[in-house]
Amino acid sequence: MSTREAKIAQSETRIFKAVFPNTTNHYDTLFGGTAMQLMDEVAFITATRFSRQRMVTVSSDRIDFTKPIPAATIVELVGKVTYLGNTSLKVRVDIFVEQMYSDEREKAVSGEFTFVALDENKKPVRILE
Amino acid sequence: MSTREAKIAQSETRIFKAVFPNTTNHYDTLFGGTAMQLMDEVAFITATRFSRQRMVTVSSDRIDFTKPIPAATIVELVGKVTYLGNTSLKVRVDIFVEQMYSDEREKAVSGEFTFVALDENKKPVRILE
Amino acid sequence: MSTREAKIAQSETRIFKAVFPNTTNHYDTLFGGTAMQLMDEVAFITATRFSRQRMVTVSSDRIDFTKPIPAATIVELVGKVTYLGNTSLKVRVDIFVEQMYSDEREKAVSGEFTFVALDENKKPVRILE
Amino acid sequence: MSTREAKIAQSETRIFKAVFPNTTNHYDTLFGGTAMQLMDEVAFITATRFSRQRMVTVSSDRIDFTKPIPAATIVELVGKVTYLGNTSLKVRVDIFVEQMYSDEREKAVSGEFTFVALDENKKPVRILE
Amino acid sequence: MSTREAKIAQSETRIFKAVFPNTTNHYDTLFGGTAMQLMDEVAFITATRFSRQRMVTVSSDRIDFTKPIPAATIVELVGKVTYLGNTSLKVRVDIFVEQMYSDEREKAVSGEFTFVALDENKKPVRILE
Amino acid sequence: MSTREAKIAQSETRIFKAVFPNTTNHYDTLFGGTAMQLMDEVAFITATRFSRQRMVTVSSDRIDFTKPIPAATIVELVGKVTYLGNTSLKVRVDIFVEQMYSDEREKAVSGEFTFVALDENKKPVRILE
Repeated sequence: MSTREAKIAQSETRIFKAVFPNTTNHYDTLFGGTAMQLMDEVAFITATRFSRQRMVTVSSDRIDFTKPIPAATIVELVGKVTYLGNTSLKVRVDIFVEQMYSDEREKAVSGEFTFVALDENKKPVRILE
Repeated sequence: MSTREAKIAQSETRIFKAVFPNTTNHYDTLFGGTAMQLMDEVAFITATRFSRQRMVTVSSDRIDFTKPIPAATIVELVGKVTYLGNTSLKVRVDIFVEQMYSDEREKAVSGEFTFVALDENKKPVRILE
Repeated sequence: MSTREAKIAQSETRIFKAVFPNTTNHYDTLFGGTAMQLMDEVAFITATRFSRQRMVTVSSDRIDFTKPIPAATIVELVGKVTYLGNTSLKVRVDIFVEQMYSDEREKAVSGEFTFVALDENKKPVRILE
Repeated sequence: MSTREAKIAQSETRIFKAVFPNTTNHYDTLFGGTAMQLMDEVAFITATRFSRQRMVTVSSDRIDFTKPIPAATIVELVGKVTYLGNTSLKVRVDIFVEQMYSDEREKAVSGEFTFVALDENKKPVRILE
Repeated sequence: MSTREAKIAQSETRIFKAVFPNTTNHYDTLFGGTAMQLMDEVAFITATRFSRQRMVTVSSDRIDFTKPIPAATIVELVGKVTYLGNTSLKVRVDIFVEQMYSDEREKAVSGEFTFVALDENKKPVRILE
Repeated sequence: MSTREAKIAQSETRIFKAVFPNTTNHYDTLFGGTAMQLMDEVAFITATRFSRQRMVTVSSDRIDFTKPIPAATIVELVGKVTYLGNTSLKVRVDIFVEQMYSDEREKAVSGEFTFVALDENKKPVRILE
């Protein structure tokens, strides 16, 4: 495994969350905006743990909400670096939904976020490998 | 003005928000995920107020975070219907940043969200005009 | 339209919000305190956008909760400057409730907030026009 | 002490809270709306504990924010029934600010809330003594 | 009453809270973690109000969740200093559950927290009496 | 690897979180109560994912806050089943702190939570393997 592959594996970041009433809408499913907030958080942590530099979100690519996420389930968000440029990188985030009382698990949402590394003067800076 | 244009104008939806410490990261700017959560909320309200039907987010297109949003500013989110299909519609959301103590105001973020109208059995249904 | 009228019109501030389970009490209506928090936020933004000075809340006048605000509705808060003194101003805030699936809309709550402009030493200072 | 006085004493309700960054604005003081939300919560609990009936807020009287509440202090909210009518009652709420590292304590905010008792059909009903 | 007993009595700290949907899990009871967060907050305020020094949590002893806390009840947390060492003290926290519409009240949770007093260099320092 | 070991490995649950201003106290460290809330959440998800039964927290053992968790760090919570009885199990939760801009990582907090499996009538029930 190359250094880059090792760094990608080691910076993979996971967040589990129980879908309780304080995160759901009146259709009793996880509010789309709450999903996006969690996705950006896991993407930011993944990017920072990969580069150990100051990273800011510059864009999110198309996000598909393939399946609704019902209340009283468990979600796992997984963030992984998928592209590395000079001053930017991309993180893919998948959300999996697990039933609480069975082993059923499926992918519900996925999207990709682009981050840029900034120096102390907030200018783009090379991402170190 | 056609009926559709009137409905689009009337469903335009605005949210102002003061950027206080409970919504910022350690760079003292609005957390990207918080911006996305607000964008989805304003988009959802715009879509619902246009159609008066049960709408769910199916995707967000590319969102560009053109400028950081510093703490101690005011943001205005504006949602507007930009496309109307048979069972789906698109809402564009812009975020403007206003300085508190000057009239300076500029666009900081924009993105587009796609919603589908569902009937009581959660099947896609025609959006009524 | 005078300068003052123009400034009042331009500082009018709107916040839409979907009433979801994280803002309701066990009667399934918007908690009064949550309504008050949103009213103060919209009043503060209105006062700041009118004066572009440092404004603090000094009092709220009587607030009438005319109608309960049920879950699964949409509310719009509207803030507007209604009085301008030397160092203080008043902002009226109305909350309208909209049904999600019909065009029904009515006023549910209204109140008035008084703000004072402060200088850097936290002393009252004339509001500039 | 009469039964009523005993019930008033016994329903007195207190909430202490540490003023941390998640409740303050960019002036580093407790946001007015957060104070109002806490005041309505303590008033609601006081009214419910007095009557043991279903109570809803119908109005708040003038609330004076006499002194700002700085970050890194402790506040105590005290709610007490001050008037008892046929179907309504009033609760006075005072907020005291305590310094963390001295015994200094002073009243910062006070206001009065009116509640009505409702029966199962949401009609006003006599408050039992 | 000795000075210490007077200080213990005077630093007793109470927080009432209504158990609304934003604090409950899908079993419609108060989430254990929310109870622990409130317990730590009341313990921290009690410790600070006793010593008027900079206090940090170093451990929590065994916490027993004797009874579930259902939605639509009222809880009261009571914090009281139970042990005073040279640089540390212990605070006991009890949570009582009250029914809203009857006088029924019982203890549901209790636990003990240990705090250490720190000086400006974050070194343990004697707690003053 | 036995079935039980496989289930323990597969139910291991991780939550990463960035320590931002909305979770810190006035010492600029993660509030102890917020740490406990996250620990209970990761423990609950671990217990549920192990048993796929209805689990409730009955107690937490002593929790040691060995090191403060400063703002602008990243924490990882890891939950793992450590004991399996007839109707109860224990989950150990460790919190690791990672610096954002270096590979430094150390354990800051650890504790153990006990859960009981309940049937539909809320009676303890055997945990299935």
